[in-house]
Amino acid sequence: MATVPLIDDDAAAPEAAAVFADIRAARNSDFVNNFWRALASDPALLAATWARLKTVMAPRDGGLDPLTKELIYVAVSIANGCAYCIHSHTAAARAKGMTDAQHGELLAVVAMASQTNALATALAVPVDPIFEVQPSSS
Amino acid sequence: MATVPLIDDDAAAPEAAAVFADIRAARNSDFVNNFWRALASDPALLAATWARLKTVMAPRDGGLDPLTKELIYVAVSIANGCAYCIHSHTAAARAKGMTDAQHGELLAVVAMASQTNALATALAVPVDPIFEVQPSSS
Amino acid sequence: MATVPLIDDDAAAPEAAAVFADIRAARNSDFVNNFWRALASDPALLAATWARLKTVMAPRDGGLDPLTKELIYVAVSIANGCAYCIHSHTAAARAKGMTDAQHGELLAVVAMASQTNALATALAVPVDPIFEVQPSSS
Amino acid sequence: MATVPLIDDDAAAPEAAAVFADIRAARNSDFVNNFWRALASDPALLAATWARLKTVMAPRDGGLDPLTKELIYVAVSIANGCAYCIHSHTAAARAKGMTDAQHGELLAVVAMASQTNALATALAVPVDPIFEVQPSSS
Amino acid sequence: MATVPLIDDDAAAPEAAAVFADIRAARNSDFVNNFWRALASDPALLAATWARLKTVMAPRDGGLDPLTKELIYVAVSIANGCAYCIHSHTAAARAKGMTDAQHGELLAVVAMASQTNALATALAVPVDPIFEVQPSSS
Amino acid sequence: MATVPLIDDDAAAPEAAAVFADIRAARNSDFVNNFWRALASDPALLAATWARLKTVMAPRDGGLDPLTKELIYVAVSIANGCAYCIHSHTAAARAKGMTDAQHGELLAVVAMASQTNALATALAVPVDPIFEVQPSSS
Repeated sequence: MATVPLIDDDAAAPEAAAVFADIRAARNSDFVNNFWRALASDPALLAATWARLKTVMAPRDGGLDPLTKELIYVAVSIANGCAYCIHSHTAAARAKGMTDAQHGELLAVVAMASQTNALATALAVPVDPIFEVQPSSS
Repeated sequence: MATVPLIDDDAAAPEAAAVFADIRAARNSDFVNNFWRALASDPALLAATWARLKTVMAPRDGGLDPLTKELIYVAVSIANGCAYCIHSHTAAARAKGMTDAQHGELLAVVAMASQTNALATALAVPVDPIFEVQPSSS
Repeated sequence: MATVPLIDDDAAAPEAAAVFADIRAARNSDFVNNFWRALASDPALLAATWARLKTVMAPRDGGLDPLTKELIYVAVSIANGCAYCIHSHTAAARAKGMTDAQHGELLAVVAMASQTNALATALAVPVDPIFEVQPSSS
Repeated sequence: MATVPLIDDDAAAPEAAAVFADIRAARNSDFVNNFWRALASDPALLAATWARLKTVMAPRDGGLDPLTKELIYVAVSIANGCAYCIHSHTAAARAKGMTDAQHGELLAVVAMASQTNALATALAVPVDPIFEVQPSSS
Repeated sequence: MATVPLIDDDAAAPEAAAVFADIRAARNSDFVNNFWRALASDPALLAATWARLKTVMAPRDGGLDPLTKELIYVAVSIANGCAYCIHSHTAAARAKGMTDAQHGELLAVVAMASQTNALATALAVPVDPIFEVQPSSS
Repeated sequence: MATVPLIDDDAAAPEAAAVFADIRAARNSDFVNNFWRALASDPALLAATWARLKTVMAPRDGGLDPLTKELIYVAVSIANGCAYCIHSHTAAARAKGMTDAQHGELLAVVAMASQTNALATALAVPVDPIFEVQPSSS
């Protein structure tokens, strides 16, 4: 089904095995999902992707809460049509507390944006000057 | 610039004028942005789009807060490449309290999702069974 | 397979059951396809989506004929990469009389547009002034 | 503005000049729009693209009428977010008789499809067997 | 699974059979993959698509080497989310010599571009004048 | 024009100024293009994006040559419709030696892929088993 093999624990190169171990520790679970097993075909890419994901999704002072980030992740994955990502991040959002009502609201907003995106693009609406930020900071 | 004229207040058909009035009342502002002026070329489409937007973005018990919805709206608009919508909803998110730090986090999550979406698609990663919901409800 | 359960008739909430009944009446068929059964997880979203679809696809004086609307629906679904929608609306187009020759023409136009869209985007072709509508109506 | 120069008549290579002449003859107009002038940087690509466009958009027995093809072209261009193509093909549709009411219907269908595409993708709705064509022809 | 039947050799119309024969000759293999069998439902579209593909992918003096073209093909297919095309062109790239290390680099560049594409779009970065080509050739 | 200010050298926070300096050193040029000046609104995002870009685009033993990577970058940017990225990476490809003939070939392959992507998606072509990699590595 995939375009690369899914790497089992036994077949993982040392750099990949270290990432698998870190995923397990970070999630406090033995489960390593297929995305990481597929990426493990290129251990450097696996390591860089996982490291960046940990940083981006980690809480930051004055930043967004974890569930909000997960909802944004799902929204982008829907717009990009990534079935795998929709499944994995919808599950992650549920694990972080997303209720059915919130899921319904997420879908409604994504559907709304999809239709107004299409309309604004079709109409080639010029940006109102009030929405523009001054180009220079000086 | 647009593919339709932008309808001034004086040129608005009665159904369009009524929507303009409702937009002004809902936002407590005299400003009607270009998206609605372009849509006013088709008053029925204008009315239906505005009515649905009001419903979707309205608070709902147990639902998402207004800023979170706005962030999701911006995220989808970025993924769909709608420049107008990115401008208008980034401005709306700021009006609802989005800080620069939160904007930076939004961008970081969107960029992260964009790259893992591409990778999961490229690798054709099969969905882990654990992420799938039972197809039937009975 | 789905990210939500598919709601059987027995499991449908009253608002969802009413939509199922209306779908059956509108189509004069007992069959309710999976899209509506998945959406039924959020009855309000189901009801709003179905109501809008009925309005949009209904004949309108001086408007487009039903088959043309269905072809446009398929074209957008292809460009957006929605496999489910391509299947359901291709079937709907056939039910409304689309012949194999017309299907072939639809595909040829979609393929043509896809390649000139890519070329115009790659070349960043400036819009000819003759294609622009006067921005103001007054 | 563009990523290549727009080729004036005087600067056109012979193969490009021949295509410009054919465009003028086919349209019975002296105007050659910027898309073709940009493509003329690569005369072979220009010639192949123009030749294919003429074939695809030409009437075919039992096929689609010219306006329907143009509407499909606009719909795909909207979904792909090609501003240039939206402008040029909306203008072409008007030249082929598209009324404002029909334009409004086109936009409404595109917006509808955009939102149900997003919803079906988000829900990962499994294709109903009734929508599938038998894979083999024998 | 498909929206059209896959045409077996026995069921192919003469024009489609001729294309199948040319595919076999060009590839020196008896295998005709499903894309062409699906397209064979419309022999004219099949013939035009195959003819253009042969021309585009053929070596050209001073042009790109075959593997580079194949990598570009895979990259576009990923960005467009075409699972079939990703599978067939990743296999084709391997047949033309793509190593695992090169596949990893391809994926890393696609992921990088995907994230900076999203960021530049989100920020609505104005194009630096130095990147623009003079619009007129005269 | 942008959704954030473009940060001048004088206004750059220390972490952003350090990235600007590294960009200048890496390119041996004083010019810092608008993408980085826009990203500088969030110095941490700026630093992470630049660091990753340097790693991804750096030569790797047995990997792809710099021009090939740049062509892939342009191809993805076209498919994603990012006008800014198309401009900056087309310029970068030219700086790395891309000829007009190679640019023409790049465009032809992108256009070809765009149309077969659309066709394969429209036809919902099932993946030939020969294109699939064994899912498990053990």
